[in-house]
Amino acid sequence: MTSEPPPARVQATDAPGQPEPTPRLKELYRTFEQHSLIPLWTEIGGLMPPQPAPAAVPHLWRWAELLPAAEESGELVPVGRGGERRALALANPGLAGRPFATATLWAAIQYLNPGENAPVHRHSQHAFRFVVEGEGVWTVVDGDPVAMRRGDFLPQAGWHWHGHHNRTDTPMAWIDGLDIPFQHHIDATFFEFGPDDVQTRATPEHSASERLWAHPGLRPLTRLRPTPATPLLAYRWEYTDRALAEQLALEAEGHAVTLEPGHAAVRYTNPTTGADVMPTLRCEFHRLVPGTRTAVRHEVGSSVFQVFDGRGEVGVGEATWTVERGDLFVVPSWQPLTLAAETGLDLFRFSDAPLFERLHLHRSHQEGHDS
Amino acid sequence: MTSEPPPARVQATDAPGQPEPTPRLKELYRTFEQHSLIPLWTEIGGLMPPQPAPAAVPHLWRWAELLPAAEESGELVPVGRGGERRALALANPGLAGRPFATATLWAAIQYLNPGENAPVHRHSQHAFRFVVEGEGVWTVVDGDPVAMRRGDFLPQAGWHWHGHHNRTDTPMAWIDGLDIPFQHHIDATFFEFGPDDVQTRATPEHSASERLWAHPGLRPLTRLRPTPATPLLAYRWEYTDRALAEQLALEAEGHAVTLEPGHAAVRYTNPTTGADVMPTLRCEFHRLVPGTRTAVRHEVGSSVFQVFDGRGEVGVGEATWTVERGDLFVVPSWQPLTLAAETGLDLFRFSDAPLFERLHLHRSHQEGHDS
Amino acid sequence: MTSEPPPARVQATDAPGQPEPTPRLKELYRTFEQHSLIPLWTEIGGLMPPQPAPAAVPHLWRWAELLPAAEESGELVPVGRGGERRALALANPGLAGRPFATATLWAAIQYLNPGENAPVHRHSQHAFRFVVEGEGVWTVVDGDPVAMRRGDFLPQAGWHWHGHHNRTDTPMAWIDGLDIPFQHHIDATFFEFGPDDVQTRATPEHSASERLWAHPGLRPLTRLRPTPATPLLAYRWEYTDRALAEQLALEAEGHAVTLEPGHAAVRYTNPTTGADVMPTLRCEFHRLVPGTRTAVRHEVGSSVFQVFDGRGEVGVGEATWTVERGDLFVVPSWQPLTLAAETGLDLFRFSDAPLFERLHLHRSHQEGHDS
Amino acid sequence: MTSEPPPARVQATDAPGQPEPTPRLKELYRTFEQHSLIPLWTEIGGLMPPQPAPAAVPHLWRWAELLPAAEESGELVPVGRGGERRALALANPGLAGRPFATATLWAAIQYLNPGENAPVHRHSQHAFRFVVEGEGVWTVVDGDPVAMRRGDFLPQAGWHWHGHHNRTDTPMAWIDGLDIPFQHHIDATFFEFGPDDVQTRATPEHSASERLWAHPGLRPLTRLRPTPATPLLAYRWEYTDRALAEQLALEAEGHAVTLEPGHAAVRYTNPTTGADVMPTLRCEFHRLVPGTRTAVRHEVGSSVFQVFDGRGEVGVGEATWTVERGDLFVVPSWQPLTLAAETGLDLFRFSDAPLFERLHLHRSHQEGHDS
Repeated sequence: MTSEPPPARVQATDAPGQPEPTPRLKELYRTFEQHSLIPLWTEIGGLMPPQPAPAAVPHLWRWAELLPAAEESGELVPVGRGGERRALALANPGLAGRPFATATLWAAIQYLNPGENAPVHRHSQHAFRFVVEGEGVWTVVDGDPVAMRRGDFLPQAGWHWHGHHNRTDTPMAWIDGLDIPFQHHIDATFFEFGPDDVQTRATPEHSASERLWAHPGLRPLTRLRPTPATPLLAYRWEYTDRALAEQLALEAEGHAVTLEPGHAAVRYTNPTTGADVMPTLRCEFHRLVPGTRTAVRHEVGSSVFQVFDGRGEVGVGEATWTVERGDLFVVPSWQPLTLAAETGLDLFRFSDAPLFERLHLHRSHQEGHDS
Repeated sequence: MTSEPPPARVQATDAPGQPEPTPRLKELYRTFEQHSLIPLWTEIGGLMPPQPAPAAVPHLWRWAELLPAAEESGELVPVGRGGERRALALANPGLAGRPFATATLWAAIQYLNPGENAPVHRHSQHAFRFVVEGEGVWTVVDGDPVAMRRGDFLPQAGWHWHGHHNRTDTPMAWIDGLDIPFQHHIDATFFEFGPDDVQTRATPEHSASERLWAHPGLRPLTRLRPTPATPLLAYRWEYTDRALAEQLALEAEGHAVTLEPGHAAVRYTNPTTGADVMPTLRCEFHRLVPGTRTAVRHEVGSSVFQVFDGRGEVGVGEATWTVERGDLFVVPSWQPLTLAAETGLDLFRFSDAPLFERLHLHRSHQEGHDS
Repeated sequence: MTSEPPPARVQATDAPGQPEPTPRLKELYRTFEQHSLIPLWTEIGGLMPPQPAPAAVPHLWRWAELLPAAEESGELVPVGRGGERRALALANPGLAGRPFATATLWAAIQYLNPGENAPVHRHSQHAFRFVVEGEGVWTVVDGDPVAMRRGDFLPQAGWHWHGHHNRTDTPMAWIDGLDIPFQHHIDATFFEFGPDDVQTRATPEHSASERLWAHPGLRPLTRLRPTPATPLLAYRWEYTDRALAEQLALEAEGHAVTLEPGHAAVRYTNPTTGADVMPTLRCEFHRLVPGTRTAVRHEVGSSVFQVFDGRGEVGVGEATWTVERGDLFVVPSWQPLTLAAETGLDLFRFSDAPLFERLHLHRSHQEGHDS
Repeated sequence: MTSEPPPARVQATDAPGQPEPTPRLKELYRTFEQHSLIPLWTEIGGLMPPQPAPAAVPHLWRWAELLPAAEESGELVPVGRGGERRALALANPGLAGRPFATATLWAAIQYLNPGENAPVHRHSQHAFRFVVEGEGVWTVVDGDPVAMRRGDFLPQAGWHWHGHHNRTDTPMAWIDGLDIPFQHHIDATFFEFGPDDVQTRATPEHSASERLWAHPGLRPLTRLRPTPATPLLAYRWEYTDRALAEQLALEAEGHAVTLEPGHAAVRYTNPTTGADVMPTLRCEFHRLVPGTRTAVRHEVGSSVFQVFDGRGEVGVGEATWTVERGDLFVVPSWQPLTLAAETGLDLFRFSDAPLFERLHLHRSHQEGHDS
């Protein structure tokens, strides 16, 4: 963990509305410092900008660089109790060397060698795994083994025991998303170690969670209370893929079901409420048909995207990148975003939107529209 | 605004579970840095502590120091467009020179000279004013003039136009509370300037808001939708005082209505929902009869208290202070808190609890009890 | 209780879409009867009308007739265990001799002689009392004595113990409203006898409930869970009167706070939710300034009004009446309603609207507007 | 439609707590009648029983009688505008000749000959279809053709246009469930005729609704608002069957997922909220393994069951029946229910439970347990 030394104070005496820097004022400012006081009038510009001015910057991490770094970690760094996970966090260059993709979101590539075991723990942070390629790892959540395969989305609500183990003879890498930066900032974090080994080495095709919950519109009568997070531990690729394909087919038949022409999208939801899978994280999958370019959109709150398949061009703020399978990029708060598909383009997205919505702080704006 | 320079990176090679610092590992760490990656295994201890480990520390600001600093600001610092408010923020010594009482809460003393006018603006931040002494200022909220008097609590939901003006020949000071640090961190902030002068200089005893809303259990038929924040702009001292006195009288008559023996408390609520006055801020008033000592309690999330009247002893974490009228102190997340009343002790409190509850991140623990 | 004999079956063979009444069809109809079957095609017109076709009719009960009938009951009919209450129910002439004001609402005048006691019981039905004149009775609810005085509204959520006693040397009459017909129809009713005498003969000015809850916008910290019905047992006239007066004063000052020009109105609400006082009953108070005539309005669901003060003219469906203090009238579902004030006109209203809203069955239409 | 003549008034002068029937009292009772008043004290026993005393009685309709009656209707009764549907309602023998299964629920068998068309209409009543055998009819809902096949559950929220047509050369019968009695009683009903013919004769395997919504846990981003009723128009048998089979398999593996040993059950839910499919109707499917007998349970509110497969014994109140495929039976409010499976027993159930829950009137009791 990085420590945070006192920043250099910038007393913006030339900012608008500032008093004359007389000796008596300087003396007063020393009194403030002595009494742990800071005036609003020198700080307001940075604290209360006209619109979000995130420190996080738009940034792209290429899979072609990420994966080799993870692979080399696989050779040099053991996985075990203490370090807990062999994960490399995307560190936003605007965030002062902290391992945070944005001010609220953590995104990392995790890597597990054949036969390895990531020890059991639980934490208040909400988490998920998304698999861009490979298979062979099972995550055991509260004793329920959940297979991980390309395209699967595997939510993991806070405070459930979980460990991973690789049952194959090839390594596997995937993406972890969490709300670590958010919970760290607001001081909400609890963490507890569990056993060093997972509770079961069973490798079923489907977890008990799926067998209980993955039936559209059907709820077990023994599970009728709404839960803050989804009880479904795996959202399989076959369903996501089919839902997106159907949206585009319905669009072709004349139904107004896509976000915009050629742009299908689904949100992963909690079947007990219909709301987001977890209270702090929104997760979605987007599919653009070749040639589609999305409208330019600003949203309060930040997102991380991973390209699942295809090739396209992405614009975030001032940046523009050509992206391919596995590439990850961040969209800081209120930065304009547009996506363009060269081939068909499949994208996984996660964001901190639920916290804004639950606190009534959400806003959005589509260029050329009122929000 | 303070800038935040890159902190010194501490690569905790001697932390548990760390790999051997071989030359090849050092080379790998350089590759990480080059690709904007940071390993979890070196950071996990600081990021995911067993329980909240806030950077903010317990701290006390004495009214006897605060008020003179505000008074001297009243002589040296004009109030007007740009600086916007003559306010001195409580800067938690643990928060690296930032003007934040805790990681999420802003608390400041604001000061307005006779005849002065604080210009109109609006912002996404939620705010309130609490008056520990004095009177004579009206806040004009969306054109509705709201008198401010000792004991009054004046909520101010985000994105409403507001300015202040002092209509008397004596200065007035009060406390501002806002969610500035929280909204700043998550990049939710919007801000807009309004006119330099308030819309009206009328000085009614009661605002239109009170005349419409301050009737217990009664709602105007023209205002039936729930609103995220309270439409009632003033919670007058006479009601708060009476509610607390009645709780203690009922307790004396044998009713189980107090929090614990000798400890009455009310929460300011939104009459359209019964929930907190604002989505991110909880505001309460506590009254302890002489001799009462509260149980020791831990809560996720942070609070600021101001002593409204009386004298007592406060314990927060390792700190213990004797407190008096006007003194303010902060309780960082999960730090144990106990209050003891020497005389009768009246305390105003605000906290960030609603954001934890709305995100299902709240926990509490009372020593000697399970939570 | 009235029994409900089998109605005469009307086989509407001449209704639209009916088959030829051949011998074979008649035989088939006999088979239906034998197997407890009834065809939709003969019934659909009555069951599924184009808009609500209530059996209840608009009707007026004059206070000048009601009160003497109650007074004479006071001479002839004892009050006590078994009969439970000396109450005369408004029996809608359209409802086949049942003691129901509408299909869902019960309204009755209750009468208690000096020194009398109405025994304690509890029931699942939600209830309230409204006092058009007099005072001197206390209702004891779960041991809490609640004074009843002109203009007071006294809700009584289902399944709380309650009894009444008259502590004065004059009789007292008031109005009871309940959801008896609704709960009777859907078979939801539970009832239990309590002691023959009220738990306490104390006669405080204010109930414990009021002392705990009647502080605008303030909630005791020991009562933070939302409750389905209001915990406040008395909504005093002074507050209702002031709220209405302020609405009209604010309207005169240019604020858009009234329902329509000259028509102020408040809803009694549950301070723990901001919603209706009880899950099945909506209660409101309306004030019209002299000369005001309301727009003609249709609403799904039925209402009962009582004139609290003043004189005016009321139109319901085809009926028109001149009304005075104490008069009660019903507005069946979807019947057009208009109110006209000759003098100032104060009206108490209750309805079954919450059940329609909670079940998403509400509709309304204002003539000259879309709803 | 049956009319409801005035019932015989029973003045229960010998009920407990009744006054002496003096001439003066009789005169008073005449005055009451003249003024449309009815005393509570003569009525209270019937109106406010100690527990629900439904007029509806437990009753069984055998498929072996129902289906032939429907088939003969198919020969004798045309389907078309006016009569609207060839449907035979279960008329509870306790409900005075009205076509109501219980006080709140409508259940009917509907029958459509090859090539027939049931004309388009819409109504405020919520409805569903459940198919115990056969196939070949499509319901067209707002233009979306929905196939109907054995085991499918097809909800139809109020106020959507719908018609049916049979595209095969065999007749088809199914069960209709609606809240007609409830909406009729509370006077909530609206009804409108549409075109005589369905909008489309397309016969797709899956409706657009399913293609958009039947993906577990996935929501289209264009459909993010919660809707009062489910947007999914078909819950296919393959999913229901699999969900039940998995519950029993998980039970066999040691997971506590069934309602009681050998008793699996799912509720059909609205994917936008996780709540019941419609605001007034609850729909479920139950599977009992051979030899299972359920605990005896009382619930406020009424239910209708249809045996989908297997044979068993059912106890409702005092009645006991052996039941087989297609048989329907009603459970009036608070009547004890127990089910026993001889073979494996599959049951479809619908009830009025959501209205009780939304109005906080629900109660249940399992014999041998507190509720």
